[in-house]
Amino acid sequence: PEVKKIAVISGDGIGPEVVAEAEKVLKRTEELFGYSFETEHALFGGIAIDEKGTPLPEETLAVCKNADAVLLGAVGGPKWDSNPKELRPETGLLGIRKALGLFSNLRPAVVFDCLKDASTLKPEVLEGTDLMVVRELTGGIYFGDKFRRQGENGEEAVDTCVYNVAEVERIVRQAFEIAQKRRKKLASVDKANVLETSRLWREVVIRVAADYPDVELEHVLVDNCAMQLLRRPASFDVIVTENMFGDILSDEAAMLTGSIGMLASASMGEGAFGLYEPVHGSAPDIAGQNLANPIATILSLAMMLRLTFGYADAADAIEAAVAKVLNDGHRTSDIAVDKSKAIGTREMGDLIVAAM
Amino acid sequence: PEVKKIAVISGDGIGPEVVAEAEKVLKRTEELFGYSFETEHALFGGIAIDEKGTPLPEETLAVCKNADAVLLGAVGGPKWDSNPKELRPETGLLGIRKALGLFSNLRPAVVFDCLKDASTLKPEVLEGTDLMVVRELTGGIYFGDKFRRQGENGEEAVDTCVYNVAEVERIVRQAFEIAQKRRKKLASVDKANVLETSRLWREVVIRVAADYPDVELEHVLVDNCAMQLLRRPASFDVIVTENMFGDILSDEAAMLTGSIGMLASASMGEGAFGLYEPVHGSAPDIAGQNLANPIATILSLAMMLRLTFGYADAADAIEAAVAKVLNDGHRTSDIAVDKSKAIGTREMGDLIVAAM
Ligand SMILES: CC(C)[C@H](C(=O)O)[C@@H](O)C(=O)O
Ligand SMILES: CC(C)[C@H](C(=O)O)[C@@H](O)C(=O)O
Repeated sequence: PEVKKIAVISGDGIGPEVVAEAEKVLKRTEELFGYSFETEHALFGGIAIDEKGTPLPEETLAVCKNADAVLLGAVGGPKWDSNPKELRPETGLLGIRKALGLFSNLRPAVVFDCLKDASTLKPEVLEGTDLMVVRELTGGIYFGDKFRRQGENGEEAVDTCVYNVAEVERIVRQAFEIAQKRRKKLASVDKANVLETSRLWREVVIRVAADYPDVELEHVLVDNCAMQLLRRPASFDVIVTENMFGDILSDEAAMLTGSIGMLASASMGEGAFGLYEPVHGSAPDIAGQNLANPIATILSLAMMLRLTFGYADAADAIEAAVAKVLNDGHRTSDIAVDKSKAIGTREMGDLIVAAM
Repeated sequence: PEVKKIAVISGDGIGPEVVAEAEKVLKRTEELFGYSFETEHALFGGIAIDEKGTPLPEETLAVCKNADAVLLGAVGGPKWDSNPKELRPETGLLGIRKALGLFSNLRPAVVFDCLKDASTLKPEVLEGTDLMVVRELTGGIYFGDKFRRQGENGEEAVDTCVYNVAEVERIVRQAFEIAQKRRKKLASVDKANVLETSRLWREVVIRVAADYPDVELEHVLVDNCAMQLLRRPASFDVIVTENMFGDILSDEAAMLTGSIGMLASASMGEGAFGLYEPVHGSAPDIAGQNLANPIATILSLAMMLRLTFGYADAADAIEAAVAKVLNDGHRTSDIAVDKSKAIGTREMGDLIVAAM
């Protein structure tokens, strides 16, 4: 079989530990399904700042560009938090998104049955929640001009939010297509009663919707969406929105599932290329202690196998193995009710490999 | 006693009904405490579009400017939703904020004991939640330049987010002062890892904090705040943030209390002048049916008496009367468990007046 190339970026904090478990799982899919992967490791984030003097070294970008997909652990930590902008892990994150053209961030928020009590929401409200936030990732206020200037009333700061029709259209089409493969409902979130970029956004959504007559569309104002996610989470299927709103709403949606240590994400460009990473952060407080939950990273790998490589059999096998291990009662400490019975990062990885 | 002038804007939907009950309560404070108010009604929002061809007529602005405070019901409705921008109720809302210099929106989010089961959050998570969102209201991306242009890749839309030091400083100082009178905790919310306006915001917060050493300060990124509001709502005291983030987070905070029909708000300018309105909307579906809950508007009036006029005795009396009526088991249908026993808008107003 064709050898697929995966760039592996362990990153900071618990990143290396959770990525190591995902790599075990990857190896197992080779044995089970005959697929063949070549992995290449690269430095990124805080560790790259320390070792190379920049969060996103040129070599790392080259490794990613040369690969079919990227697996990322997590980046950042207090060590780099007060660095100047160019020497911060986030700057690397924004840089890699732009450089790889990753315009679409897919964040499924699902409630794992065995974890439904972990949410701060009432179980009956959460029942059936299974939504996907599709966030525009390379435009908007994140990437517009930003500067300081002297205004009439002293120093001022400016950020610019820009969207063009093509940028909106490609993400919106992708969201409609995802909705077609799910429950056929799309909520487009904007602030069209205030923002010009939102009015453009809504015009494009309305025009594009004509090509997806089987998808039920609603327009939701961002403030209202922040409320409705709390009131009726299960009623959402796919939510599509611009970069800044997506940042806020996807985190709100993730937290309401109560399963944040288990959520995967994909950042996609044109074609099948994608960067896959867990939703959780680098958790420096528990790094290096075999305490981290590797499931979100392993499920991110499953997303990669499905979306980039089209290896649905392998993705299914991984997801089924995760479900089985959880159903058998195994828990890392973040999701354990009885922490004294919690297993470690490596043990969880081994159990998932064994269950495949 | 000095006669205080109040501009009364009933607005659209249920606005006139809930405002009428607040006016009864106002009258009762005159009888009980010897205060003296002069009210002047003015058209605003949808009804002003219909009758005067603009959401914010000059006369209305003059009435407000001539008053010591403004009481607002609610504006908007589907009837005006597809109007061009100049003929939409929201445009009037943004216009009145700017014209009256209402730079600070205060949104208390409290859990009413008798309603704690109404939230979608678990009661044990919600326990003790009593926070105040202080939202900057006349700056940021709401009021910066917005336009369309032809870019390299076709039509694009632009919104500009601008903050100067003075704008940030006045709202931040106000938030610190509010925190000093509460539990002395302030969370400043920004996106300083991405936005230049947020970096300016954070610099100002850090500088101003030196003048309020008794207030415990934390900086929270907006995406993290959207999560923490769900995870640990009771740990927040005062939250201060810029206009767009405040729009989203104050609605999220309101919804998590489960008491959205009961929440008051104040929009303050320099000095004691303020505009007071319920957090809920104009609810056109139940308008004119004596079904709306007038409590949020009545509590907004109490905020006015306290913040603009310094009439703490009257404000206390209103708040105590509301608590008593609720404790006696009276409910409008939005908050009634047994809807068949629900009372109407007018009956709720009468009971509160009687309980004062
Ligand atoms: C670290 C930060 C720049 C980033 C973002 O805002 O996009 C993060 O919050 C995310 O959602 O991936
Ligand atoms: C109607 C709209 C313009 C307004 C806002 O975004 O400020 C509303 O959502 C609010 O919070 O008062």
